[in-house]
Amino acid sequence: MSTAPDSTRTEAARWPMPNFAKGNGVLPAIVQDVRTNEVLMLAYMNEESFRQTLATGHAVYYSRSRARLWRKGEESGHVQIVREIYFDCDEDTILLRVEQVGGAACHLGYRSCFYRRVSDRGLETVGEKVFDPEVVYKHKRQAEKA
Amino acid sequence: MSTAPDSTRTEAARWPMPNFAKGNGVLPAIVQDVRTNEVLMLAYMNEESFRQTLATGHAVYYSRSRARLWRKGEESGHVQIVREIYFDCDEDTILLRVEQVGGAACHLGYRSCFYRRVSDRGLETVGEKVFDPEVVYKHKRQAEKA
Repeated sequence: MSTAPDSTRTEAARWPMPNFAKGNGVLPAIVQDVRTNEVLMLAYMNEESFRQTLATGHAVYYSRSRARLWRKGEESGHVQIVREIYFDCDEDTILLRVEQVGGAACHLGYRSCFYRRVSDRGLETVGEKVFDPEVVYKHKRQAEKA
Repeated sequence: MSTAPDSTRTEAARWPMPNFAKGNGVLPAIVQDVRTNEVLMLAYMNEESFRQTLATGHAVYYSRSRARLWRKGEESGHVQIVREIYFDCDEDTILLRVEQVGGAACHLGYRSCFYRRVSDRGLETVGEKVFDPEVVYKHKRQAEKA
């Protein structure tokens, strides 16, 4: 992604596609921090979200629960700048290596959605909290009303 | 996982469970190398495979195509020793941090299943090939016959 000149950014048709048919149109996408290699989250993509990701350079996912495209950061401003994309051997899983704007991928304010470690004493919170979701999403809601 | 004394290894009932109901009984599991932080593969788990992973300390997955448990490395010998387990915020995705025995997670012989990078020139193989699958799986088949 980072090596693509701007003139190719909008020509997503040239780029390889994963095998969306294998997932009935929707495939999982692992999101990893390109600098720290931390796994940030898992999201899902359909072909349109994949094409928009290629075209814009920012991660666009498909929300299965809301059945619509989801531009990561559309509410929080915490967009993901996509630096590299990989397919797995079966071409039914996508790996995005991203720069996470704002430092937190999780809507609860943690750097990573995987902020809790499993142990025989329960779930231990070990991840770093970067922002207070009450503040970030409240500010956004106020901005939208303004 | 690494801190669990042997006496608790078989008492998986005490450990927290992810929300398998959200995935109709099957959830995605991201597998990451605990030393290099490389993302190795994506697999799927049902409750039984998760319990067996806790009980044995080795990764056990659920094969959706074969509809049965799949002990990673059962053919190749390349088992995954599970060092840490994380749940995401929604408790519908699992992250396993593992030691990959044999150095390669992919059945095609690459360290990671994500050995191909997407570019506007196609898929570029950038991953490291560790073994020749013809040799590894052929040896295994011969050993099974012996």
